[in-house]
Amino acid sequence: MPKQIHLNAFHMNSPGHSWAGLWAHPRDQSSAHNTPGYWTHLAKTAERGKLDAIFLADVIGVYDVYGGTPDAALKAAAQAPTLDPFPVVPLMAGVTEHIGFGVTATVSYEQPYLLARRFSTLDHLTGGRVAWNIVTGLLDSGARGAGQTGLAEHDSRYAAAEEFLDVTYKLWEGSWADDALVQDKAARLYTKPDRVRRVQHQGERYQLDALHLVHPSPQRTPFLFQAGSSTAGRDFAARHAEAVFVNGPTPELVAETVRDIRRRAVAHGRDAYDIKVFLGATLIVAPTDAEAQERHRSYAEYIDAEGTLALISGWSGIDLSRYGLDEKIQATESNAMRSLTDTLRRLGPEKAWTIRDLTRFGPEGTRGAFLIGSPATVADGLLHWVEATDVDGFNLVRLVMPESLEAIVDLLVPELQNRGVFKTDYADGPLRQKLSGSPRLSDRHPGARFRF
Amino acid sequence: MPKQIHLNAFHMNSPGHSWAGLWAHPRDQSSAHNTPGYWTHLAKTAERGKLDAIFLADVIGVYDVYGGTPDAALKAAAQAPTLDPFPVVPLMAGVTEHIGFGVTATVSYEQPYLLARRFSTLDHLTGGRVAWNIVTGLLDSGARGAGQTGLAEHDSRYAAAEEFLDVTYKLWEGSWADDALVQDKAARLYTKPDRVRRVQHQGERYQLDALHLVHPSPQRTPFLFQAGSSTAGRDFAARHAEAVFVNGPTPELVAETVRDIRRRAVAHGRDAYDIKVFLGATLIVAPTDAEAQERHRSYAEYIDAEGTLALISGWSGIDLSRYGLDEKIQATESNAMRSLTDTLRRLGPEKAWTIRDLTRFGPEGTRGAFLIGSPATVADGLLHWVEATDVDGFNLVRLVMPESLEAIVDLLVPELQNRGVFKTDYADGPLRQKLSGSPRLSDRHPGARFRF
Repeated sequence: MPKQIHLNAFHMNSPGHSWAGLWAHPRDQSSAHNTPGYWTHLAKTAERGKLDAIFLADVIGVYDVYGGTPDAALKAAAQAPTLDPFPVVPLMAGVTEHIGFGVTATVSYEQPYLLARRFSTLDHLTGGRVAWNIVTGLLDSGARGAGQTGLAEHDSRYAAAEEFLDVTYKLWEGSWADDALVQDKAARLYTKPDRVRRVQHQGERYQLDALHLVHPSPQRTPFLFQAGSSTAGRDFAARHAEAVFVNGPTPELVAETVRDIRRRAVAHGRDAYDIKVFLGATLIVAPTDAEAQERHRSYAEYIDAEGTLALISGWSGIDLSRYGLDEKIQATESNAMRSLTDTLRRLGPEKAWTIRDLTRFGPEGTRGAFLIGSPATVADGLLHWVEATDVDGFNLVRLVMPESLEAIVDLLVPELQNRGVFKTDYADGPLRQKLSGSPRLSDRHPGARFRF
Repeated sequence: MPKQIHLNAFHMNSPGHSWAGLWAHPRDQSSAHNTPGYWTHLAKTAERGKLDAIFLADVIGVYDVYGGTPDAALKAAAQAPTLDPFPVVPLMAGVTEHIGFGVTATVSYEQPYLLARRFSTLDHLTGGRVAWNIVTGLLDSGARGAGQTGLAEHDSRYAAAEEFLDVTYKLWEGSWADDALVQDKAARLYTKPDRVRRVQHQGERYQLDALHLVHPSPQRTPFLFQAGSSTAGRDFAARHAEAVFVNGPTPELVAETVRDIRRRAVAHGRDAYDIKVFLGATLIVAPTDAEAQERHRSYAEYIDAEGTLALISGWSGIDLSRYGLDEKIQATESNAMRSLTDTLRRLGPEKAWTIRDLTRFGPEGTRGAFLIGSPATVADGLLHWVEATDVDGFNLVRLVMPESLEAIVDLLVPELQNRGVFKTDYADGPLRQKLSGSPRLSDRHPGARFRF
């Protein structure tokens, strides 16, 4: 059997996500993200297409690096407003049976004892379909909302994340034995007390001496997603993640990233393929290449350049409002700008990159897989990316909702199924079992050492 | 029109709630609380009965005061395990249209910026049907889970709660103008930046300088519930609560509490009836008095005395395992024990109260309204309580699920409707509008001063 491709719908509880401005497209319904119907339709559509999961990004804070104000982000709905992703999971779970739900939560602002309970509760209610996308915070504006003076230094956030995970592993894996809950009505015994124990943690940032409040859920530890691209982030992912989300503008650069992640996993005593790698993919599919190109033109009209630069300014920490749209991007003293120009140079050493290029909505842009065409054309493109990079699948970037996802589900998925590279039905069991064969953490995973 | 009675279903995401042991009753289905079907059935049943809200209690921690261990609580499922109440709200909202959802969240462990976002998100997704039951923490074991050495001192928790509420009011009421979100596709303008502002708070415990992440939801501030019974708790409720939950064993004692709450509300510049008072009520209803008595006997067989004492030990802070079941309760040096014996003396000055009396499952017990009988008998009893105490309604204590709630919905509610004291249909609008006539906070409410 050829290598199977995995697909997640990459989404966010916001009117705009990766590309700012598409909410204004006449056919887009993203403004309804604050109503249940938006989410139940998304979930049913994605499950109809046998997608693995709906991956919910999140950001705490507002994109105010661009021009030093949130104005561009607010006007273009660039991840603003941003609602809590957790409450839409039960809504979607209520109308589906198989699809998983990745939820982003930030170790920098959450309380491990309460977050562990929330994930365990969701894992119970969804029958083991929950993943946690572990993030450490992105925006200073979010840190100021959470009572901090600004975002903590990058590597120290990852050190805190390590400790946070140890605490949650102890709660998820080590507090309740599998046979603790007996629910024996005749004996009037609900839980065997000697099969439940307090877990202790006395660390630098977290202290805890408590029972986990929830009995073991189908997966115990939720399936673990991560998306760090820095060295500290990749090393963290190599230790903890069961799936990682990467971006990259060319197959060569993505292949390098994937090799590095798998190499680091092995260095941490795991298998190279213990980690599923998902590449961000912007796919515009229609019955014919010509129709897809027309659709691309129609979407592109709505891309908001300022809103998109507000997003990139937030991601990079560089205030891109200081440059004209046609100004050439040049290395400056700033580390972030040096890193951006390094990437661009590797992407096109012969080209004079401008600020406008960063907002380019098309395959010639700087973002990642961007494919436009008929089901056959896009399937060819995806298979080329898989072969060239060794990724396991794609996070499908949200475009015009629901039409762009419906096109993937109704046109592209059957094409992939016909080629034998995409499942025709879901495997049994919890999300982890579907993705990696077992409902619980692998023995090689660092969380496994905390088992009861 | 006679005074209308309000009814909430008092529930918890746990196999046991107010009375330990009922999970073991052959007809009880509470063990399924970790599955969606349990909650959707509860919600549909409660909405069929035109109940105002499902009020979800919560506790962070385990009841380990009794005997210094959680064993009794674990064995009897006395609020253990306890799952997160938030995720069941969207499940229930997805299958209902009108009923409200009260969710308990603890100011002592939550982050105001994130909690405000979570409530705003839920208020959007439910069309304005969310209430927050504000609590300050109950159990040392919970504080130790949340990284504290123990529960903070009682009055200091209420001072922290005051500040926490100021922060959330600023976010809910003061960050976005009503006309900030325009969603104008033609103008490609989602939000008017000049109609959104950062809110600032530099307090003793909380610091914040941030936009609220969510545009105004139907109620903005969720409808506010509170249940404090101490002096600090009542004063807090008189300032902030729009509904309070009280308990008390006799109409006389409850009437005193209600008078005190209304008097304190007036002292804070509010109307006496700005606060709806709900009394805890254990109701066992059947077609005839005899059948209801039989049902009571059947339920009583399953009350777990140790589990119940574990709950009361947690609530009072007194380790009741140190006494025999038939030992007389006497005042000791302990403040908590003095307060308990004071109450008992007022309840029955002539009686020698024993520990066993505290676990009594019946009208002769020490808890609150406890009525057994036909619809007519129980309706008479409720109307007597209303007349004698001036309460606005009742929190219906969960017993054997779903049968005891179904009996209330199918037998008692029609009886109350026939008497003209219970609505035959829901009023329009968000929960606050249904309960107090307006979807937003009253101008007299302290949150109103933070309006944009």
